[in-house]
Amino acid sequence: MIIVFLGTAGCGKTSLTYTFGEWLKKELNVEVSYVNMDPGVYSTPYTPSYDVREIVTVEKLMEEGLGPNGGMIRAAEIIEENIHVVSRKINSLNSDFTLIDTPGQIELFLFRPMGPRLIEDVAGYSPTVSVYIIDPTLASSSSGLAISLTLPLITRLRLKVPTVSVINKSDIPETSKVEAFMENTSSLEDEITREEAGLITDLASRYIKLLSEFSKTMRIVKTSAKTGEGMNDLYTLIHEALCECGDLM
Amino acid sequence: MIIVFLGTAGCGKTSLTYTFGEWLKKELNVEVSYVNMDPGVYSTPYTPSYDVREIVTVEKLMEEGLGPNGGMIRAAEIIEENIHVVSRKINSLNSDFTLIDTPGQIELFLFRPMGPRLIEDVAGYSPTVSVYIIDPTLASSSSGLAISLTLPLITRLRLKVPTVSVINKSDIPETSKVEAFMENTSSLEDEITREEAGLITDLASRYIKLLSEFSKTMRIVKTSAKTGEGMNDLYTLIHEALCECGDLM
Repeated sequence: MIIVFLGTAGCGKTSLTYTFGEWLKKELNVEVSYVNMDPGVYSTPYTPSYDVREIVTVEKLMEEGLGPNGGMIRAAEIIEENIHVVSRKINSLNSDFTLIDTPGQIELFLFRPMGPRLIEDVAGYSPTVSVYIIDPTLASSSSGLAISLTLPLITRLRLKVPTVSVINKSDIPETSKVEAFMENTSSLEDEITREEAGLITDLASRYIKLLSEFSKTMRIVKTSAKTGEGMNDLYTLIHEALCECGDLM
Repeated sequence: MIIVFLGTAGCGKTSLTYTFGEWLKKELNVEVSYVNMDPGVYSTPYTPSYDVREIVTVEKLMEEGLGPNGGMIRAAEIIEENIHVVSRKINSLNSDFTLIDTPGQIELFLFRPMGPRLIEDVAGYSPTVSVYIIDPTLASSSSGLAISLTLPLITRLRLKVPTVSVINKSDIPETSKVEAFMENTSSLEDEITREEAGLITDLASRYIKLLSEFSKTMRIVKTSAKTGEGMNDLYTLIHEALCECGDLM
């Protein structure tokens, strides 16, 4: 099966990918392959079985004169042109678990054709789940929580595979703020009703109500790549997500 | 007044900022200041009156050994630490219009403290509007349209200033697809109801219904930095957004 890790820049994708992979190997005695899909990363804690830097690196594009943002966009375009090569290589890995680590900036993978095209290709070949990683430093403000609850929904719509959410960095103090927030989402609603009336306020208010409901009903697991907390819970969540969708492990 | 331009990487923020600024100068005979908030950009078509690269550049951080993503995150952190210096400089510009161009990757500005803190500081000083730029290459798929309608809502919640949306690059063929999509959003709903049942599907479905309604009622202007189309419409939209919120121009 394939597990793809996504989240905003700095949420700890690479560390969680690595920690979860090592946990799988040790606890379940299974074969794990790592895939690096970030053309801009300099080094990874794991040895990738497939590395998209075979195709292009942001570094090389910058040497040719592009800025860091231009380099990332151009790298994404080059990967998109070669996406079937990438997915063929990933599909040929044949491990029990293939963990895909995505680019630092979530928009390169999720808001461009790169991610949807890759996941369409690999999900046709193996059961695939995406793990949306909530960063407590973002989610501990009301608007940041709104973003953190919306992005897993967008991930689900965009990648069309079962999507689970984890709060990562559970070792940092912001995590308990996020939990308190999610248990009492009325502060989210209060914040928006303090605003002036108007179309966007009405919409934003209904949107927040929807997210509040979402946060009350969804099961979110806490993980820490640092302490190793929550790996078993994450595994169970992924397993359940696949079962609900009728796929086999 | 202050106008801040946001959108996903490659949507044309910098070009639109420049084209709109030049239009304001020529058509309204007003003073315009440009602000560059992208620490990673190599050059801009306008001469910035304030440039955040005075504080830090991604290039410099990369020379010190960070990768492009790490460099962007670190640059954002350094700017956040100095945000009051930045906002004081912007507030001292005293032009009729100050146009703020934001980093290539939207998450650096919107999903981190940089954007909210800056806008809080400047909006207390001058009437401020944000312009969310929809990229038709993203919005011409159903899930991409969902993202393109959600991000202006998130912008509104996060920056707490009136937010208007424009479809940029109106000169490219994808624009007419987006318009057709927005006129008939049932395809968005159809796509989601084809999915399996389950909690996230139910939520995603309601979320899409909300966005469909949003797309039917919101007024979105078409612009092209290339042809100059829509500058007058954008100006009117910004003006109306401020009036609705009780601010003066």
